[in-house]
Amino acid sequence: MSDLIRSWVESANAPDCDFPLNNLPYGVFSVGDADLRCGVAIGDRIIDATGLEAAGILRADPDADVLDAPYWNDFMELGRAAWSDYRARLTALLAEGASDDVQDQIITHSVPMADATLHMPFRVTEYTDFYAGRHHATNVGTMFRGPENALPPNWLHIPIGYNGRASSVVVSGTPVTRPNGQLKGTNDDAPRFGTSARFDIELEMGAIVGQGSNGPISVAQAFDNIFGYVLLNDWSARDIQAWEYQPLGPFQAKATATTISPWIITAEALEPFRVSTPEREKPLLDYLQELAPMLYDIALEVGMAPDGQPETVI
Amino acid sequence: MSDLIRSWVESANAPDCDFPLNNLPYGVFSVGDADLRCGVAIGDRIIDATGLEAAGILRADPDADVLDAPYWNDFMELGRAAWSDYRARLTALLAEGASDDVQDQIITHSVPMADATLHMPFRVTEYTDFYAGRHHATNVGTMFRGPENALPPNWLHIPIGYNGRASSVVVSGTPVTRPNGQLKGTNDDAPRFGTSARFDIELEMGAIVGQGSNGPISVAQAFDNIFGYVLLNDWSARDIQAWEYQPLGPFQAKATATTISPWIITAEALEPFRVSTPEREKPLLDYLQELAPMLYDIALEVGMAPDGQPETVI
Repeated sequence: MSDLIRSWVESANAPDCDFPLNNLPYGVFSVGDADLRCGVAIGDRIIDATGLEAAGILRADPDADVLDAPYWNDFMELGRAAWSDYRARLTALLAEGASDDVQDQIITHSVPMADATLHMPFRVTEYTDFYAGRHHATNVGTMFRGPENALPPNWLHIPIGYNGRASSVVVSGTPVTRPNGQLKGTNDDAPRFGTSARFDIELEMGAIVGQGSNGPISVAQAFDNIFGYVLLNDWSARDIQAWEYQPLGPFQAKATATTISPWIITAEALEPFRVSTPEREKPLLDYLQELAPMLYDIALEVGMAPDGQPETVI
Repeated sequence: MSDLIRSWVESANAPDCDFPLNNLPYGVFSVGDADLRCGVAIGDRIIDATGLEAAGILRADPDADVLDAPYWNDFMELGRAAWSDYRARLTALLAEGASDDVQDQIITHSVPMADATLHMPFRVTEYTDFYAGRHHATNVGTMFRGPENALPPNWLHIPIGYNGRASSVVVSGTPVTRPNGQLKGTNDDAPRFGTSARFDIELEMGAIVGQGSNGPISVAQAFDNIFGYVLLNDWSARDIQAWEYQPLGPFQAKATATTISPWIITAEALEPFRVSTPEREKPLLDYLQELAPMLYDIALEVGMAPDGQPETVI
C-alpha cells in the first residue's frame, strides 16, 4: 500500500478515513431539493466538481462542460489521459501546501458529506456479469450441478460471462423487493408461481468501461479503458434461477436489482493494489495473455446494514 | 386480412406495395448530408414527421416536440392512446378525399423513398432475446445437446430468454464482419483462437417496448406496452457458442451484431393478423394466461441480399 498523501482537508488524514487524498472517488450528489451534481469525496466533504468546472477553477475539457450533468459519462468519454490529468490537478488543489485562496475556493464549492444524498454515479448502458472467481464458480456450480460438474471445462480457458440487465442497476440504498417468479423444486411435478425463498447476493466488483470501442481491442487496451470500479451486489433468486437457467443462462432470477456503490474508485487510485493472477492451471491462448498484473489485492467483506439489507464494505 | 385503405398517394394503392395506408411504419431517414429525421413510409414516399410536427400540421403532443430527434423514443414514451390518436390523424391526412391544401402540405413535407438513407429507428436501451419458437428451440437444442434433450423441460411452462447485447443492435445494411473467437471442437484437446466457420442467423421478430414499467405488470399490460415490431436477424457464431455457452448462455457468439429492419411496423397495423397460440401441451400458470390472441399469422422468408448477406422479407 502507498503512503498517505496529506490534505489540508484535515478529516482526510485520519487513519480510518475511507476518503484520503489517495482515493478521490467520483460520485453524484444532491443537497436538499437542489439539482444533482458531480462530486468527489475527500475526508468528510464532497467537492462540487460541477461547480468547480462552471467557475473555471478545474475543468476536464477546456472547450466543453462535461460535468454539467448528473452523471460522469461525458467525463469518461474523454479517455485515460484526460482522467489522469484531471486527477493530478485536483490532487494538487487538495494537497497540503495549497494557498489560502485555493482552499477558500474549494471549500466554497464543497458540502459536508453528512448533508448529501448520493445517486447513481453514471448511466449504465450495458452490464456484463462475469463468472470471474474460481471459488464462486465452483460454489454455484455445486449448487446447480453437483460437485463433479461444478467447474465447467471452459472456465479454465475463456472468460465466461453473460449480458446482465442494465436497466435494473441501482445505487446502494435503493429498496429491493423480494421477487416473485416461477419456481419448481427438483421433486415437484409442476412449477408454481410464488415469492422467491432463496434470494441472496453475490459480492462483486463492477468495472466501468470508460470509452466505447469499435471492433476488437487488445487485453492491454481493454485494461486502459477501465475508468474505475464500484462495489456490486448481484441479487440472485436461486430458486427461480434453478428452474429457468437451462439452456440460456440466468434471466428473471437476476432481474430484480443489481446494487452498486455510489462512489467510483478510479483505476488510478487502485494502482498500488495491483497483483498478478494466481498461477493458471491451463496456459492462456495468446490473445488473452496479460502483459502486466491486472488483478487487485483488496479485502472485501459483507455485513448487514441497519435496514437489514446486506452491505458490502471495503 | 383487412381491406386496403386507399390513399391519394397513388403508389400506396398498388397491390404489391409494401407500404399501403394500412401499414404506415415509422423510421428514421436522411437525404444527402441533411440531418436525420423521423419519417413514415407511404407508397414510394417518406413523410417527414419531424417536419410536420415543427410546422404544426401534425403533432403527437401539443406541448412538446417529441419528433425533433433522430429516434422515435420520445414519441414512444407518450403511450398507447397517443400512438393511436397520432396514427388516426395521419391516416386521415393521407386518405383519399383529403383536400388539395392538405395534399400540398403533406407533399411539401415528404421525400421520395428512393432518395433517402434509412437509419436506426429508435435507441435500443435493452435487448432481450426470447427462445420463443418451439421448432427453433428443438432445432438448436438438437444441435447442442442431441435430439433426446432438445427441448428443455422448462420450455413448456415459462418464457425462456436472456439479455442480449443492446449496443450491437444495428440497422439493416450495416456491414457485419465474421467474428473471431475461442473455438473448440468436441474432439479437440484444447481450444484455439480463430475465425468462426459456422456463422448463421436466426430469423426473428423484435417487439419494441414503448414505455418503461416500474414493478410487475400483467400479460395484458405488457401487450399494450408493445409499440411495434421489427424484423430481426440474430447473428450467431455456432462454433463459438458451443464452447462458451455452458453454464451462462450465449455471449460472444451473439455479440457481433443483431440486425433489425429500418421500419417499425406498429402493433396497431398488425391487429388484423392476430391469432391465438397453438394449443399448449401444458396449461400455463394463471399469471401467464393470455386474455386475447397474442400471436400474429405472418409469413416470413429469408432471402439473399445483393451483397451476399441474408435478407429477411415479410
